[in-house]
Order: sequence, then structure tokens, then C-alpha cells
Amino acid sequence: MAPIRLGMVGGGNDAFIGGVHRIASRIDGRFQLVAGALSSTPEKSKASGAALGLAADRCYGDFVEMAQREARLKNGVEAVAIVTPNHVHYAAAREFLKRGIHVICDKPLTSTLADAKKLVAAAEKSDALFVLTHNYTGYPMVRQARAMVAEGALGKLRVVQVEYPQDWLTDAVEQTGAKQAEWRTDPARSGAGGCVGDIGTHAYNLAGFVTGLTLDSLAADLTSFVEGRRLDDNVHVMLRYKGGAKGMLWSSQVAPGNENALRLRVYGDKGGLEWSQEDPNYLWFTPHGEPKRLLTRNGAGAIAANQTASRIPPGHPEGYLEGFANIYNEAADLIVAARDGGRPEHLLPTVQDGLAGVVFIDACVRSSNRNAAWVSV
Amino acid sequence: MAPIRLGMVGGGNDAFIGGVHRIASRIDGRFQLVAGALSSTPEKSKASGAALGLAADRCYGDFVEMAQREARLKNGVEAVAIVTPNHVHYAAAREFLKRGIHVICDKPLTSTLADAKKLVAAAEKSDALFVLTHNYTGYPMVRQARAMVAEGALGKLRVVQVEYPQDWLTDAVEQTGAKQAEWRTDPARSGAGGCVGDIGTHAYNLAGFVTGLTLDSLAADLTSFVEGRRLDDNVHVMLRYKGGAKGMLWSSQVAPGNENALRLRVYGDKGGLEWSQEDPNYLWFTPHGEPKRLLTRNGAGAIAANQTASRIPPGHPEGYLEGFANIYNEAADLIVAARDGGRPEHLLPTVQDGLAGVVFIDACVRSSNRNAAWVSV
Amino acid sequence: MAPIRLGMVGGGNDAFIGGVHRIASRIDGRFQLVAGALSSTPEKSKASGAALGLAADRCYGDFVEMAQREARLKNGVEAVAIVTPNHVHYAAAREFLKRGIHVICDKPLTSTLADAKKLVAAAEKSDALFVLTHNYTGYPMVRQARAMVAEGALGKLRVVQVEYPQDWLTDAVEQTGAKQAEWRTDPARSGAGGCVGDIGTHAYNLAGFVTGLTLDSLAADLTSFVEGRRLDDNVHVMLRYKGGAKGMLWSSQVAPGNENALRLRVYGDKGGLEWSQEDPNYLWFTPHGEPKRLLTRNGAGAIAANQTASRIPPGHPEGYLEGFANIYNEAADLIVAARDGGRPEHLLPTVQDGLAGVVFIDACVRSSNRNAAWVSV
Amino acid sequence: MAPIRLGMVGGGNDAFIGGVHRIASRIDGRFQLVAGALSSTPEKSKASGAALGLAADRCYGDFVEMAQREARLKNGVEAVAIVTPNHVHYAAAREFLKRGIHVICDKPLTSTLADAKKLVAAAEKSDALFVLTHNYTGYPMVRQARAMVAEGALGKLRVVQVEYPQDWLTDAVEQTGAKQAEWRTDPARSGAGGCVGDIGTHAYNLAGFVTGLTLDSLAADLTSFVEGRRLDDNVHVMLRYKGGAKGMLWSSQVAPGNENALRLRVYGDKGGLEWSQEDPNYLWFTPHGEPKRLLTRNGAGAIAANQTASRIPPGHPEGYLEGFANIYNEAADLIVAARDGGRPEHLLPTVQDGLAGVVFIDACVRSSNRNAAWVSV
Repeated sequence: MAPIRLGMVGGGNDAFIGGVHRIASRIDGRFQLVAGALSSTPEKSKASGAALGLAADRCYGDFVEMAQREARLKNGVEAVAIVTPNHVHYAAAREFLKRGIHVICDKPLTSTLADAKKLVAAAEKSDALFVLTHNYTGYPMVRQARAMVAEGALGKLRVVQVEYPQDWLTDAVEQTGAKQAEWRTDPARSGAGGCVGDIGTHAYNLAGFVTGLTLDSLAADLTSFVEGRRLDDNVHVMLRYKGGAKGMLWSSQVAPGNENALRLRVYGDKGGLEWSQEDPNYLWFTPHGEPKRLLTRNGAGAIAANQTASRIPPGHPEGYLEGFANIYNEAADLIVAARDGGRPEHLLPTVQDGLAGVVFIDACVRSSNRNAAWVSV
Repeated sequence: MAPIRLGMVGGGNDAFIGGVHRIASRIDGRFQLVAGALSSTPEKSKASGAALGLAADRCYGDFVEMAQREARLKNGVEAVAIVTPNHVHYAAAREFLKRGIHVICDKPLTSTLADAKKLVAAAEKSDALFVLTHNYTGYPMVRQARAMVAEGALGKLRVVQVEYPQDWLTDAVEQTGAKQAEWRTDPARSGAGGCVGDIGTHAYNLAGFVTGLTLDSLAADLTSFVEGRRLDDNVHVMLRYKGGAKGMLWSSQVAPGNENALRLRVYGDKGGLEWSQEDPNYLWFTPHGEPKRLLTRNGAGAIAANQTASRIPPGHPEGYLEGFANIYNEAADLIVAARDGGRPEHLLPTVQDGLAGVVFIDACVRSSNRNAAWVSV
Repeated sequence: MAPIRLGMVGGGNDAFIGGVHRIASRIDGRFQLVAGALSSTPEKSKASGAALGLAADRCYGDFVEMAQREARLKNGVEAVAIVTPNHVHYAAAREFLKRGIHVICDKPLTSTLADAKKLVAAAEKSDALFVLTHNYTGYPMVRQARAMVAEGALGKLRVVQVEYPQDWLTDAVEQTGAKQAEWRTDPARSGAGGCVGDIGTHAYNLAGFVTGLTLDSLAADLTSFVEGRRLDDNVHVMLRYKGGAKGMLWSSQVAPGNENALRLRVYGDKGGLEWSQEDPNYLWFTPHGEPKRLLTRNGAGAIAANQTASRIPPGHPEGYLEGFANIYNEAADLIVAARDGGRPEHLLPTVQDGLAGVVFIDACVRSSNRNAAWVSV
Repeated sequence: MAPIRLGMVGGGNDAFIGGVHRIASRIDGRFQLVAGALSSTPEKSKASGAALGLAADRCYGDFVEMAQREARLKNGVEAVAIVTPNHVHYAAAREFLKRGIHVICDKPLTSTLADAKKLVAAAEKSDALFVLTHNYTGYPMVRQARAMVAEGALGKLRVVQVEYPQDWLTDAVEQTGAKQAEWRTDPARSGAGGCVGDIGTHAYNLAGFVTGLTLDSLAADLTSFVEGRRLDDNVHVMLRYKGGAKGMLWSSQVAPGNENALRLRVYGDKGGLEWSQEDPNYLWFTPHGEPKRLLTRNGAGAIAANQTASRIPPGHPEGYLEGFANIYNEAADLIVAARDGGRPEHLLPTVQDGLAGVVFIDACVRSSNRNAAWVSV
């Protein structure tokens, strides 16, 4: 079967996540990148496109031009990956959605709550798919964790501890020319949340994905520790879920020694689970009163949700890129099914999940501005 | 040198912490247990004393009788370990302090804030020493962590993450005859805090000991997850320290798979530290921008604070009992020095630390009762 | 730049390593699979090829036909991946090498020492490249380890401990229809070594790659623990390297709980290194008399050899497939350079490394047959 | 019950293991040190004794004088701990055994095979007990491991991998005044084995204790890597057990980064076990085809052998000293039973185990001298 024709908005030189999307789209051989509006100027865009082997006439100066022309081409893109800074997501997605081109969009959904709501409307009006790359939900052990919770292996849930510390913003690197740091600490491009938007939303999404719980309210204490930084770089949140479970969320970009230490622990009245993104092929399962068990990717004790998200045998570690590729792979399933009007069940993050993330950011900022008062979400 | 004559209040059969105190007092050979009011009835007390090899005439029916008689004996006890449930601490300590007998008392200091203040007054009026067994401060790697923070290895502190989950109260075991669970979930004996008093205070104390920070205010969300339980079994707290550092504290007794998982992480603008009680011979030091370093007890990179708290070479693990014994050992130093009126510097938890712990419990309960509002401490 | 046209011999349905090669060749987008002799019959080969999207006329019934026709095509394959059982490697490689088509071949080189020598001759006579996929040498931390040893970070090497335990042959699964187990325990297809050939050679190769040491002699004790098994499933070897270093190699396929636990430890008079394949993003460096340091992929302390083999930031784990893809990526560099007659320096395993592996297998079998007598290699 | 009166031979200032024995004897309060021949001269012996609180008239100039006088005293020692360098063990033990005084002796049993045989004869002729402190057998998880193997949890044993690396002799510290290094690298005091005697015997003993296997033959390659060192500092051994199991033993004192890394892995046809001395409260159990389980000291899944060797709840780590104290505690049981002629079953290392250790050393040295030829034991 011919690969799905993919376009990309953003992701030129200097970008981080664009390259990740490209690798993720290639791993299972189901997409082929054929067009792009990769940078903010036509020249840069063409240069980046050429380096990636794109035809010159499919390197566009902006996403509007790209959407218009690709929609008219006989073999135009079927799907587009949007990997720009947050403030561009909505405007770019809208152009493709309204032309029936599927959108795979990086997180958070948008830089403002207003944009998020408009993007939801645009996605719901379109026949095209909208997939948000909360990529951590693609890890096989995360899939197994979700299934185990759903099957009741932990009993009734009580406590959710999720954290996502990093250390790359310990110093004021945004003041010394680091592109990634610049836009991620810029309210105009990132939105009202800094750390909370960039990685706090991943933590929040992961907790919801695994537990199936819905947040009721939160109390957040956001801090900018680095002098001159315009957005939060440390996030402390207490969580109350509907049904009575409680939780804590910590995300930070100023915690030296933490590279990308997303970690989730969930406890119910029958047992617990623990998963760490930096060692993603393992999942601790601790049934109450029994020895701890170390479950592995595709290994002994792997259930279908784990096996189907794995490519290779246990002990041959899969990583971040394979977890990300699982999102692309499942998106490919949906895109192929959509050709015949099919809409199979799936586990992909949706535009509604994206909205929930922006609501979470908004609630955290509002709570923090009110001295960490409880805010309903 | 002859060992210090030690008495004990509480710690009869069925007790947990009494046995710990006895082993800790023996490890370095500087104490000898010679008297006790070990149980709540004279008969049980004598039976427990006999099992421990105490002379019959030094097994007392209650601590008042014991204090009175031992104070008159030529070779009466020089120090007493108080290892009863919390509500007895004050009354027992008072009897010995007022007779000039040193007190080594288990935590938390008392079951009420009023008692705590009275005990502070009693201790300050007495010439005798008062030592509170926040035993986790006795671990060599904790001592090294404190010294490193004090020396500036982490720079200016920003974030403190401390947690102390256990799982032994996941079920309502206090309703099925478990003595330890009974009194620890009983407000009359434990005070207004359950999990927060029993282990939350350890976490709070440890964070303060290592960082040297003073708490400014907190917001606490206490929960009793187990039906019928009268005290909290899960504790979520956001912390604001004087000077701007912020933190989170989680303690729980309903987190399956956690045996006794006290863990502290501290981050400053130059580096971080991480220590876990269950693997106490290790300390991670993460200077910002450099590889993580694993420091070990008495090993390469051990500083004096670590070495002097160690007995044996690196790789020969010391544990909980040795850390506890370091408290007894340092108390012995003070007791010997006190014979000549000396009061050397030391690292032992004091009655003021005990008061701070009870203030912390009280603040957590008050905050939680006001929907986790910020409360100054 | 257009991707390199790749063919494949072997790797049809039921295969394990063929799929790995295909993913590895796609990750960096530098190869495109366009032809194959994927199975042992023309029908199966065409079916497998169709499933992979190959054109029907480029799905061949055998590798001779494929080599002949592809060599004549204008856009025939530039390189071929040989992923059959061992006994086919030589015959297949010969056909492509003699027609100037580059060969990327799975390990071990061949099933017999005679074939290995013939393949060396064939490779040396050809202008085409020959790359052996000792894929573990592609891991970034392995690259860093090699560079650190070469730079003298460990001082003069003394001790090499390498092991590679698995558990998938704990039972006699080759007698119950498991295809992978069948050929790997069949002397006709695997050669005289079972476990020693399948994974022992990986361990041996890794030790040599990292240390730069040359083996002088070995004493091997091979065992078939499972009743009816025709080849060894556990391998114990003592190693003596030229220059005086000594080592041990253990590989096993009957060690329950070990999925794919390749692990290398190297010690010199100034320090040590430790690396585990199942947690490949870490490398322990233990300079003598200093704290242990945990180096990470692309993280603090990463040197160029580590960084250039990494795609994404630290804490975003790369795994087995990315390590494997590093072999393909470097092969692509060589193939591109070869178009202009270039032969840049590289770290890829060569046909000589392959011969060394077969010599190692042969020496182990001979030693074991002589009661583990020392055998020179 | 009054504590057992204990004497000590060796263990004066500068000693390591003497202090360990003293702490171990105190932990459970069942011994009281009352006499000693602690050093090689009467003056030093008295000084060391005074520092330990011994009465002056019970500090002896040598062990013969001590044995003679203590045997005559009404309250003379009931047991003696022999903690000298190896070459003194036999002569000292003999003096006490022949006077009916129980002996607790450090390992290895003696410095020569001839002495070992004489000591066996002396012990068998005596009514007194002889206990060898292979202390690692006292760890609760080691006890559980042994019981699990005996109960068949691993099925028929196939592979035993045991290792004991250290790094403290990486440099020639014996040439710069380090007392511990001096005698341990001196053939006159240690015997013909260096590393193999000092720690290799611990590894060998541990493997036998847990597996219950009897060694049939071995092939050993001993090396002295440090220039001028007179005894081996690295030990490579292949093992063949009666019944068909095979193994490898590595011990080293020149492996930087290894403090005291004794580690045992055992594999049978139904499962595996793994235990590491540096993290002694854990035991991995890997039943074939099921998830790995992490058993803990006194925790969920603890069997009686584990519980009875534990003092405190799970998660409160016990360490090296408690494991050592378990040997003393069980010795106390035997000594008390012996007062009434009882000889209960026990798990303590005996003089026969000590002989087996010296036979192992002797076999390793002989094998190594014959180019690692197989030697029966």
C-alpha cells in the first residue's frame, strides 16, 4: 500500500520537534513527507525543504499557500503535521481542516483558551481527523497501565502522583540565544503558561489517559525562579478528581539532574502502578500484599495493549521515537479507514483532549494568580 | 567507660519502636538498659522487663513511680527513652526532666499543640537534655546532604520535593486487631493528625534538616480514604519557605507497593540532591550541567559528616538501625559531656524541632479544614 | 538527496531480524527498500514483498536471480541487506559482491569457518562495501565508552567482564514449532555454535569494540542444558587478551528473567566503565577513588562520539532500533562516499570483524571439545 | 537471661573485622565482651581492652594465656571470637576448643590446607561449638533464597553466576602503610590465596549455601595485576557442580567502582534468583515465563526463613551488621542449647564449610599454576 502523503508546517532548521515528527512518521513506513511550509520565510522554507528532499514546488512560504495549493493537487497531501510554536497551531490547523486535510498537531493545542475553543469548532465541523501528539500515551507500558486500571487491577483509585521535572532552563538560557528556550518562555508564542503548558500538560494528560479520571478542581502555585523569566518554570498543583481521588502534579524546568523525568504513580485500594518515561520499557505493578512485579514491554505478563504497541521482542528497548511513532501509526490506521468513511475506535489524543489541556493551563494560571485558590475545571 | 544507665517508658511486648530504641542503644555499647515502665499495667511491665533481663525491682508499674524511685537510687537511670503512644509523651517526659534525668523521646513530640508548648517549657527549665528521635537525620548520607547544602553545593535553593508513602494502612486493619494500627489511627492517642503526624512530620523534619530552610506557610489537603478511619491516611501539602523556595510534601499510608519510602529531593540554582531512605547508603548529587554522581556511605567523595556517622567501610550497607543508633551515640556524647557541664554542638533533633513538628501537624489540619487555604506556621 | 535503493535477502513473514533491518533502514530516511528475495519460495517471496509494497517484478524467487537482474537494471539496488539464517550468508553475499552491490549482512558472518574465509576473499576482491550488523556497536553510549577507553580514561586495561544472558530457550521450544528457535538450534543452519554463535559473538564483538583489545586465547565450556538440544545453550569462557588483560564471557539462552541482557564491564588501573543493553542510554564511569558518574546519551558529559550517534535530547530514550539505525546511517555515508570513490574512516563492523567472530565460535567449540583447554585464536 | 560471656582474640586498634564482630555480638544483647587478647603485644592488648571497657586483668598478652586463665575462672568466657589474620586461626582456636570454650572464627578457616585439616580434627574432638563467620549467609534474603531453591522454586539448577568485585587494592596500597592491605597481600599471613582467599571464599560459600550444590571441579585463572603484589588480586574460575550445573566465579580487588559487590545469580529450569549484597533487602525472583518479582526483607512474599532473620518491618533497611548479627544470634541459640547438651538444627557455617573453603583456595591455586587446568575438589 502506498504511503500516506504528508505535509509539515514548521519544523525547519533549529527546530526540535519537527525532526521528531519526521522520524516518527517514517518508522513504520506508512507516511511519506512530500510538502512543507517549514519556516517563517519562503527562502528558509525552501532551504529546509531541499535538505529534506522535498520538490521545490512543494516548499511553501506559508501554510495558507500550502493548504490552498495542496488541496487542489491531484496528489496533494492527505495529512499535515503542525509543529510550530503554540500560537500558530490554530490558524494553521484551520486552513487544512476546512479543506478536508487531516491534521496531526503538536501540543499544547493552542496558546489561548479562545483559540482552543475555535479549533475544537473547526475540527468538529471538518470531516478530517485531528490528532494531538501527546506522544507519551503511545508508549506500550502506558497502554498496558491504562488497560490494567480499566480492568480494575488497582481497585478503586485513590491517589495520583505525577511529575515531570527537567533541568534545561535552570539558567536564563533564553537570554543567550537558545531558540527553543526563547519561544517557550515567550507569552506571545507559548501562551500564559510556561512550564505548565510545555510539559505540565503532558503530565496532566498522561494521568488522565492512564487513570480514566476526570479532574474536578485544582490549586496551583506557579513560580518563575529564574530572574527575568516571563513565564513559570516550576509548577506545583494539588488535584481533586471527580469520584474522590486526589493527586499532586509537579513539573519543573529548573530541577538539575532531571533530563526529561516524566513519571506517574497511581494507587487504588487493591494495588499500585509506577511508570517512568526515562526507562519506558518497564512498569511496576504492586498488588497490595503481594511482591512487586516488574512488567516489561512485550515481555512476560504483557497484555494485548502492550504487545500491539511493540515492534520487537522484550529486552530490545524501544524508546521515545517508537512511542511517538505509535501515534503516527494509529493515525495512519484512521486515515486509511477514513478513505472508506470508517471511524474505528482508537486511543489517540483528540481535539477535546487538547482543549482539556488548555483548560488545565488556564485553570492553573488563574489559581496561581489567586494565591493557589481551588479552581474548578 | 561504663555504659550510660538507661530506662524506658513504653516498649513492652507488641510494641515496634521500643525494640528499635533498644537495639539502637546497644549498637555502640554506650547504654545499658536497667529499668523500665514498659507497659500500661504493672504485671505486663514486669513480664516485659523480665524478658529483657531487667531486675524485678526496676520494672515499674508506671512512669511516675519509676521517675521517683530511679531519681533516688544511687545508680538510678541517667537517661530515659520514651517510646509510648504520642499522648503520653508530655506527661512522662515531664517527670524525668524535672528530676534532671535526660530524655530521649520518640516523635511526634506530643499529641496536642498545648502539650508541645508545655513540654518545651519543661525541657527549657530542666538541666537535663531532651532529644527527639527523628532518626532519619542520623543517616550518614543525610548528614552529608545537609553539609553539602550548607556549603553551597546546590547554590540558592529553589525547590524541595519530599515524600513518605507507605502501604500498611491500605485496608482497615485497625478494625481487625492490629495494635500498631489501632493507636496510630486513634485521635485520643495520636492527636489530630494521623498519617501527617506519624510520618508526615518525619518528612517535614528531614526537609528542614537537610535544607536549613524555615517554612513560611503551607496549604494542605488531608484525606481519610479508608472507610471508618478517624484520621487522615493521605497528605498532600504545598510548601512555601522563607526566602522563596517552594516545595511539596506527600505522605500516605495507603499507597500499595511502598514499604517505607521516605525520599527527599532538593534543587538549587547550581545543582540537586536526591536521597531515598529505603536505599540509604546512596546520595545522588547532580551539579547542573555535569554528569550525575552517586555518592556512597563512607565511600569515594564522602565528607567528614558522612564518615563520622559510619561504622564500616563502603559497600557494607548500614541501615535503619545504625542511623537510629547515631542518634543514641550522639546523645551519649552529650550526656557524657553534661556530666562536666559541657554542652557541645550537635546535630540532634531538639524539643524545638519537636514543637515545629507539632506546629506543622496543627497547621496542616487547620489548612485542610479550611479547604486547603494557606496557613502561616 | 534521493534515498539509496536497497534490496533484501530473507526477512519474509515469520522472520524477526528482517523487520528490524527494514525499520533501521527507514529511521533516517536514507534507504528505500525496492527489491527482495524475501523467502525460500517464489510464492512466499512475492507475498511478503507485496505486503511490504514492493513491485511484483522485483520480488525474486532466489537471491541469484535477484542479483543478476538487479545488477542489470538501470535503477537496480545499490545495496542489499542479507538477513537469512547463517548458512546462506556466504552464498548470497558472494552474488552481490561480485556484481559491485554493497552488502549489509547480519551476524554471525557465516555458519562455517571455511565460508567465512571465502567471504573475506570475496569482499576484499570486490569494490563494494561489506558491513556486518553487530548493531550493539551503534549505541551512542557504546561509542562513548570506546572513545573513553581509547583516550585513556581507564588507564591500562586489566579486566573485561562481558555477559549476554537470555531466557527464551529455557524450554525446548524448538521442538514445538517456534521458527526462530528451530533454525538457531540447528547445526545445519546455524553452524557449530548455538548460543555462542547467536549471541556470544555479539558479546565478544562488543568487548573488542569498546576495549580495542585483541584476544590471545580462550578456554570455553559449552553446555546444552535442554534435553535433545543439538547446540550449546550456555557458554562459559575465560579470556586472555594480548597485553595481559583478562576476561570472562558468559552467554546463555536458559537464564530465566533475562530478556536480552547484554552487559559489559571494563576495568583499568585508573577506572571502570559499565554498560547494559537493556538500559542503553546510561553509561557508568567510575574513576578510581572518585564518586561514580552516570553518563547519559546526549546529556551532560556526552562527548562527540555520543552526540553524533544521537538524534534527540537526553532523557528522551533512544533504543535498539536507533542503535541499529546508526549502523545503516553510517553505511549510507559510506555508500554515498563510494559513489565518488571515497572511503572515509568509520566505526562499522567489517568482514574482518565477522571473520574474527567465526574464529571465536570455532575456538570456543574446539576448546570445549577438549575439556575447556586453552586455545589460541 | 544473662548475656553469654565472650572473649576476643585479635581485633585491637587498626583492625576492621574485630569491630564488626563486637557490634554484631551486641545488636541482639545476647553476648557481653569480657576478655580479650586483642593485639600482638601485652601493652597494646591492654590499651585496646581498656578502650573497650574490659577489666585490666582480663586483657591478655596472648591467646594461650587467655585460654588457660579464662578456662579456670568461675565466670570465664563461654565463647571466643577469633578475628586475627588467617595464619593465627588454627593455633588460637585449638587452645579454646580443647578447653571446651566455643569458638566463633573469622574466615577463611586457616592459611594452609594442613592447618584446616588439623582444625577440623580439633573441632570434632571438642564438645565446644565451632562457628565460621561466613556472615553473608546471615542475610534474610539469602536465607529466603536458600529456602526457595530447596523447595524447588527454581526447578533443577543449571547455571550459577557468582561474583565479588572490590576496588580497594587497585593501587599498591600495601606498599604505603595500609595495615589491612599489608596482611591480606602477605602469603605468610593470608596463605597461598589473596583475593581468592579473602573474598573468593565468601562467593564460593554463598553459592553453595544458596544452591545446596556440591562442587565437582574447577578451572581457575588467578592474576596479580598490581606490580609487586605477592598474591592474586583477580580471580576467574569456571565451576562444574555435581549433578551437571555449571558456574562462573569472579572475584577481584582491582575493579574500580566496586565497593563490596558480592552478587549471586542462580538459574534453574523453572526460574531464577538474583541477590546483591550492596542492596541486601531485595531478592529478585524470576519464575520462567512470568513477570519478575522483587521480594523484600520481611515484606510481602517473605517466607519464615526471611522473617525470622529480620528484626524490623520491611522498608526499614537492615544491613551488613544485622546480617552478621544473625550469625551471632544463632550461635547464641546453640550455645544456650549446648548448656543442656542440646544440638539443635541450624544454618551456621561449620568447620567443614571452612575446610571446603580452604580446599577451594587450594584448588584454585593449583589449577592456576597448571594453566587453569581442571582440578577436582
